[in-house]
Amino acid sequence: MEFDLVIVGAGSGGYEAGLYAHRRGMKVAFVELSPETVGGSCLNRGCIPSKYMRHGAYLLEKINKGDNYGILFDGLKLDPQKLAEGRDRVVSTIRENFKKFAEKLGIKIFYGRGILKGPNTVYVEGEDREIKAKFILLATGSSCASLGNIKPDGKRIFNTDQIWGLKNFPKRMLIVGGGAVGVEFAYIYRMYGVDVVLVEIMNRLLPYPSIPEESSRYLARKLKKLGVDVRLKTYVLNYSGEDVLKVALSDGSIVEVDCILLGVGRKPNTEGIGLEKVGVEKDEKGFIKVNEYCQTSVKNIYACGDITSTLMLAHKAMYEGKVAVSHMLGDSDWKRDENLIPKVIYSAYEIASVGLTEDQVEEEGYDYKVGVVSFMSNPKAMDDGEDEGFVRLIVDNHTGKILGCHILGPQAGELLHQVIHLMKAGIGVKSLANAVFSHPSLSESIIQSAMEVYYGSMTWIKRS
Amino acid sequence: MEFDLVIVGAGSGGYEAGLYAHRRGMKVAFVELSPETVGGSCLNRGCIPSKYMRHGAYLLEKINKGDNYGILFDGLKLDPQKLAEGRDRVVSTIRENFKKFAEKLGIKIFYGRGILKGPNTVYVEGEDREIKAKFILLATGSSCASLGNIKPDGKRIFNTDQIWGLKNFPKRMLIVGGGAVGVEFAYIYRMYGVDVVLVEIMNRLLPYPSIPEESSRYLARKLKKLGVDVRLKTYVLNYSGEDVLKVALSDGSIVEVDCILLGVGRKPNTEGIGLEKVGVEKDEKGFIKVNEYCQTSVKNIYACGDITSTLMLAHKAMYEGKVAVSHMLGDSDWKRDENLIPKVIYSAYEIASVGLTEDQVEEEGYDYKVGVVSFMSNPKAMDDGEDEGFVRLIVDNHTGKILGCHILGPQAGELLHQVIHLMKAGIGVKSLANAVFSHPSLSESIIQSAMEVYYGSMTWIKRS
Repeated sequence: MEFDLVIVGAGSGGYEAGLYAHRRGMKVAFVELSPETVGGSCLNRGCIPSKYMRHGAYLLEKINKGDNYGILFDGLKLDPQKLAEGRDRVVSTIRENFKKFAEKLGIKIFYGRGILKGPNTVYVEGEDREIKAKFILLATGSSCASLGNIKPDGKRIFNTDQIWGLKNFPKRMLIVGGGAVGVEFAYIYRMYGVDVVLVEIMNRLLPYPSIPEESSRYLARKLKKLGVDVRLKTYVLNYSGEDVLKVALSDGSIVEVDCILLGVGRKPNTEGIGLEKVGVEKDEKGFIKVNEYCQTSVKNIYACGDITSTLMLAHKAMYEGKVAVSHMLGDSDWKRDENLIPKVIYSAYEIASVGLTEDQVEEEGYDYKVGVVSFMSNPKAMDDGEDEGFVRLIVDNHTGKILGCHILGPQAGELLHQVIHLMKAGIGVKSLANAVFSHPSLSESIIQSAMEVYYGSMTWIKRS
Repeated sequence: MEFDLVIVGAGSGGYEAGLYAHRRGMKVAFVELSPETVGGSCLNRGCIPSKYMRHGAYLLEKINKGDNYGILFDGLKLDPQKLAEGRDRVVSTIRENFKKFAEKLGIKIFYGRGILKGPNTVYVEGEDREIKAKFILLATGSSCASLGNIKPDGKRIFNTDQIWGLKNFPKRMLIVGGGAVGVEFAYIYRMYGVDVVLVEIMNRLLPYPSIPEESSRYLARKLKKLGVDVRLKTYVLNYSGEDVLKVALSDGSIVEVDCILLGVGRKPNTEGIGLEKVGVEKDEKGFIKVNEYCQTSVKNIYACGDITSTLMLAHKAMYEGKVAVSHMLGDSDWKRDENLIPKVIYSAYEIASVGLTEDQVEEEGYDYKVGVVSFMSNPKAMDDGEDEGFVRLIVDNHTGKILGCHILGPQAGELLHQVIHLMKAGIGVKSLANAVFSHPSLSESIIQSAMEVYYGSMTWIKRS
């Protein structure tokens, strides 16, 4: 065989898996649509550019509270063009570095659509050639799903592939969908001065079972406070107009906006890549069926990322890619476990969740305890002027095992990792309750939540 | 006995220990000098107010790079008075909440100097009464040490107790001592527009064996870049002058400054509290001798914090206080281990260290591996515009045990906790190398450093 492993798709999952396989001694090649798409959706049209913009929004919020730190200024001016330039610079830097790094490592990237021709053969459409490999990893990602009655045109109606072209911010914007993408952009655009209406068909923002309702409520309250017009249980009936879009909503109102952003989900890229030809099975929703090692119905073909389940997160893809490679190399102790995959949302708060929610543990019949600690009394959070939010730690009452952790507040996305590592290693609440920490730190709140569980609550109400 | 535990000193260590003891069912009382000193040095004249000011400095640095995010403004005005007000508000809020919380829990605070009269008796000077307890925990903290030839007057020559009164920032300032305090204030004052000269007698900033020299070098470079006049191997010969202080330095130069800040160490408060009377032993430097459970030479008297060793950190006191209480209650599995105490410095970078440095593991004869990862290629760090710094992870080559971790860069003080927890739980590098993480996150760099160690480096140079 020419290669040990060919990876179809050099997005987050494919790329991470490829580097990992190389590190472990495999001869690896990538097949990717074009030099411009290396890095996939996350890098080019997803988490990386949006996190850049979100940092700008966060910075604006901090600056607005600068007088608490004796920082005053005149004439604040916002320049969306500069924001976009900075963002695009980061994206292209990472993308070019990716390619250079692969080249230096001797990992070949074939450009063109990769189509399975046999269990060991991938046809590269662009280069019109076949490549052979002992193993194949499918990492083709996902695409924007469309919403029945609203057709994105990339001019005034954008999906999340197109929104990056919007270089001058509109005066008024409608965001359809209060999921991770919707709430992130609502915050970004609002902080940059746009009047945002955010509609969500369900009765809460972030309507995911893995995120506690409390996080959704906190977020909705904050977004409203910042001036976002949040409307739950609301959807778009129809729209009309040229210069100004008149959008009829299900709550009976008509809103006039300059543009619409659709943040309404994605579908797996599992069409036209030869799955049927080689017998790789899909489920009824179009996802590739994989086992706990990310192995498909064809033994030497694996799949990772957005094509394996609805949990479409870059780091889930990265994790699955490594689980797959590790299994190809004969390991069997590393298994796919969606329960350990963190969900992190960057909006007006950082919102981070891992494991089960209280609703879920109740449903599953656990005898559990919850430790809740507010950042309100955390000295570091107070010093930083970011004392809103909480840590909720859910623990199995019998075993002491950590079942879930939900953080909303400053640095939640980083803080959660200390809990993820302990959950993965099977370390229980006692160790965390007796942990060593630095003072002052945000991390103290996590340790306090573990103390609440392990030693019992210290509120005077419960003591009496 | 009136109380199970009397704690002499309601600073960080005493307070944390007291709440912990209460949580575990002990009847607790505090003895503290006055209502104004509750919270001790850390809260009133140390980490909490300095972290507030440091956050302002950090915010200023961010704002100065705001144009990358399309955030522009005309004039920036700095108001030290407002900074001080915000800072003092946080400090007094925490202090008052402390007192209220203790009251609600039914924990009594006696005000006055606490002096040991017997193994179970503390005399409270101010209230002129004796209190009896089964156990006594000494947590009296430390005071500013003086430097032979420079006498602080609180007007133009300040020690770290006095500096908080400086409400209008001077034009020029000399900071003596490049330790944690010196480098923090150098950054703060510099960002608020002061011309700062920072002198350190040793050949590096942060001249502590537990902090790698590389961290010191990074910091010195950055401080210089920000305009701080950093002078190593330099000390003050003498000074003179009224309005302007002319300070002669050992490098032969004379600097003219408006004021001097002395950040030159502290001494334990172990005088005049009756130690000799009850037989609590001290070492030759004045520290109280304690065993691994923080027990002194008198069986039922314990000590924690700045009075037990030169590692004068609030969280070390908090940790020791809980170790002590846990031992009073009959536990013996929780022991004092300075190796696990993180050292976190907030200056022009966050600098966080735990465990051994490479120099130290070499000296101790370990066969070790180091994983080094730069934040330069971390996508979250790039998005946040803070891509300077590194993670260095030091691992025992035979056991896979993590021996030390040293982070310099964004959120280093929080990020380090994920490693501290694993070190304490005895979890090795394999678990961290195969960890689940969120993308993009700063935490990825920690996991990558573990991959470097566990799977080997991926640089093309080493591969060839």
